Amino acid sequence: MPGSEKEITIYDIAKKLNVSAATVSRALQNHLRVNKNTKKMIVKAAEEMGYRSNSFASNLRRKNSNIIGVIVPRLNSSFTSDVIAGIEKVVNDNDYNLIISQSLETMKKEINNAKAMLNNRVDGLLVSLAYDTINVEHFEPFIKRRIPVIFFDRVVEHDHYPQIYIDNFKAAYEITGHLIEQGCTRIVHITANVLRNVYSERLRGYKAALEKHGIQFDESLLFINDLSANASAITAQEILKMNPLPDGLFCANDASAVSCIQVLKKAGIKIPGDIAVAGFNNDPVSCVIEPNLTTINYKGFEMGEVAANLLINHLVNKNDLQQTHSLILRSELIIRESSAREK
Amino acid sequence: MPGSEKEITIYDIAKKLNVSAATVSRALQNHLRVNKNTKKMIVKAAEEMGYRSNSFASNLRRKNSNIIGVIVPRLNSSFTSDVIAGIEKVVNDNDYNLIISQSLETMKKEINNAKAMLNNRVDGLLVSLAYDTINVEHFEPFIKRRIPVIFFDRVVEHDHYPQIYIDNFKAAYEITGHLIEQGCTRIVHITANVLRNVYSERLRGYKAALEKHGIQFDESLLFINDLSANASAITAQEILKMNPLPDGLFCANDASAVSCIQVLKKAGIKIPGDIAVAGFNNDPVSCVIEPNLTTINYKGFEMGEVAANLLINHLVNKNDLQQTHSLILRSELIIRESSAREK
Repeated sequence: MPGSEKEITIYDIAKKLNVSAATVSRALQNHLRVNKNTKKMIVKAAEEMGYRSNSFASNLRRKNSNIIGVIVPRLNSSFTSDVIAGIEKVVNDNDYNLIISQSLETMKKEINNAKAMLNNRVDGLLVSLAYDTINVEHFEPFIKRRIPVIFFDRVVEHDHYPQIYIDNFKAAYEITGHLIEQGCTRIVHITANVLRNVYSERLRGYKAALEKHGIQFDESLLFINDLSANASAITAQEILKMNPLPDGLFCANDASAVSCIQVLKKAGIKIPGDIAVAGFNNDPVSCVIEPNLTTINYKGFEMGEVAANLLINHLVNKNDLQQTHSLILRSELIIRESSAREK
Repeated sequence: MPGSEKEITIYDIAKKLNVSAATVSRALQNHLRVNKNTKKMIVKAAEEMGYRSNSFASNLRRKNSNIIGVIVPRLNSSFTSDVIAGIEKVVNDNDYNLIISQSLETMKKEINNAKAMLNNRVDGLLVSLAYDTINVEHFEPFIKRRIPVIFFDRVVEHDHYPQIYIDNFKAAYEITGHLIEQGCTRIVHITANVLRNVYSERLRGYKAALEKHGIQFDESLLFINDLSANASAITAQEILKMNPLPDGLFCANDASAVSCIQVLKKAGIKIPGDIAVAGFNNDPVSCVIEPNLTTINYKGFEMGEVAANLLINHLVNKNDLQQTHSLILRSELIIRESSAREK
C-alpha cells in the first residue's frame, strides 16, 4: 500500500494563497472580519486541496460535535428499527448526525460502546440497556462532562438520567385481563431476564391481573428464556408436555408468540380455541401469522421521536433535563384472532 | 444548566503530581522510558481526575482510530441486520469499534453520512448504496486519504472500490426457471429501482430464464415499486384486475411477496394452485406466511463477515485491496409450498 497522503492544514492553504494562517482560519469559520472575496478564494482553495476541518479541535472550541450517539441492545428487531427511525427523523430535522452501535445484549460490549461514543465526542447519548447490564457506572464519564444521557425502553432508576418508557405494567395487566375474559384460567407467561424493567414490569402486570380475578399465580406456568424464536420453540415443546395443558399464553414479545403458535399448531392445538395467545410489540409479523396475533402496540417510532426531542431541546435550548425524570408513553391493546374466542 | 466542566489536560495532571507534562504524556502512552511506579501514579491520577485521552490527536499520530464505519440504506430489514451482525462479529474479534448510519435510501443523506464518517476518522468504510444514488463522488475524499471503502450488496463498478455481492442474475434465473418448471407461463415480476445492481441483475435473470424457455418477455407483467409491504399490497390489487390472471409471481424481496400473498389469498386466489409465488432473501417471515415462501437464501451474515474481513485484513496486514475487485458470494434457491405444485 502506498504511503498515506499528508493531511492538509490551514498553513498549507495560507502558504499557497500567500495569506496568513489566521486569515485562513477566520475565513473557514466564516468570520465577519475577512473580506468576502478573500473568503471565497480561501474556501475554494480549501476544497480543491482536500482540506478537512479539524473537527475535533473545533469541537473542543465549540463544545459540540453535532453528533448524537445511540446504543441499543440489538438492531435486528422491528421495534428497535422503529425507535431509530423516530430518532433519525428528529436528528435530521435539527442537522445533527446519528451514529449507532449495538451492545449485543452484553454489558461488556455496552461499556466499549460507551467509551467509543465518548471518544467520538457525541453531544448526547440515547441508550436502551443490554440484557445483563447490572450497573450504569460506564455512563458516569458523560455526567462528569455534562453530556446528557437519556435511557429509553430498557431503563434504570437514576437521579441523573431521564427515562422514557411505556407503562409495561399496565399493558401486561390489560392483556392478561383480556385473556382471562376469554375464559383462560391457566395462562403461561414467557418472558426474559427480569433484571430489565420491561420484563419485570410485564411480569408484575401479569401477576396483578391474575390476582384481580382471583387466580393464584402458579410458578410452573412461568418460563424465562431470551424470547428468540428458537428458544421459544423449545419452550413451546415443554408446554405441550404439560398436563393439563394451559389454556392461555402471554409472551413478552411477538417473535416468541409467533414461534409458539407455529409449534402448537403443528401439534394440532387450536388457537385460540385450545390455547388463546397474546404477544407484545405489534411487529409486522403479528399480522402475517395465522391466526393474527393479539398484542400490545408499542410505539417505537414515537418513543424515538420523544427521546430525540428531549435530548435536542436540552442541547439547543438548554432545557433542564433533571426536571424530566420519567416520560411514560401510551401503549394500546390490539385484539386479534389469536385470542378472540367466540362467546 | 450549570457550566460545563473544564476538560482535564496532561498539564493539569503534571501540575498536580509535580512532574513534567512530557512525563505524563509518555506515561499515558506506556512509554518504556518512564519509571514503573511513576507510570502507575500518573495513570491513577489521570483516572481519578477524569482525564480523557485526546483520541483525535493521538489518532492523527497513530493514523488510526480503530473505528469502522458502516452506511446502509435502512436498518429495518432482516437482511441488513444479518449483514451488520456478521460485520460486528469480525470487528469485535479484532478490537475495532463499529459505528453505523443509515442513508434512508437517499443520496443526500448518504453524502452527509459519508462526511460524518470522514470527520469521525473511521479507519475504513463499508457501504451499501441508497436507492437513488447516482454517483459515488462523495466517497472520493476517502480515496484521497487512502481510507479503504468497500461496497457490499448494492454496489457500483469502480476502479477504486472492491465490491461484495451475490450473483443476483443467477439467483433470479434459477427461481424464475423453477416457476416455469411448475407450469407458470405468465409470471409477474415485482422489483425496485433498476439503477441498483441488485434489482437490474434480478430483472436480467428473470428475462434470461423466460427466453431460455421460449417465453416472450411481457412489459405488462413487470411492476416497479419500493418493495415495501404497503406498495406491494397496492400492486397485488392491480394484479387481481389483470385478465387473464398471471399464474406466477416473482418478487424481488420477501416483504413484497408476503404482502402479495396476503392480498391474493383474501381475494380467494389459491397459492400455489392459481398463482405460484416466490420471494428473495429468506427473511424469517418467509417461514411464517402460509403457505411458506419459496425464496433465495441470501447469506447476509456471511456477506458481513467477508466484507469486514477483507477490510480488516487490509488495515492490519496491508493486503492490497485493489487486487480484489469483486467477491461474489453463493446463494441458494429454497423451494417451499408457495410455489411447489403437485405434478
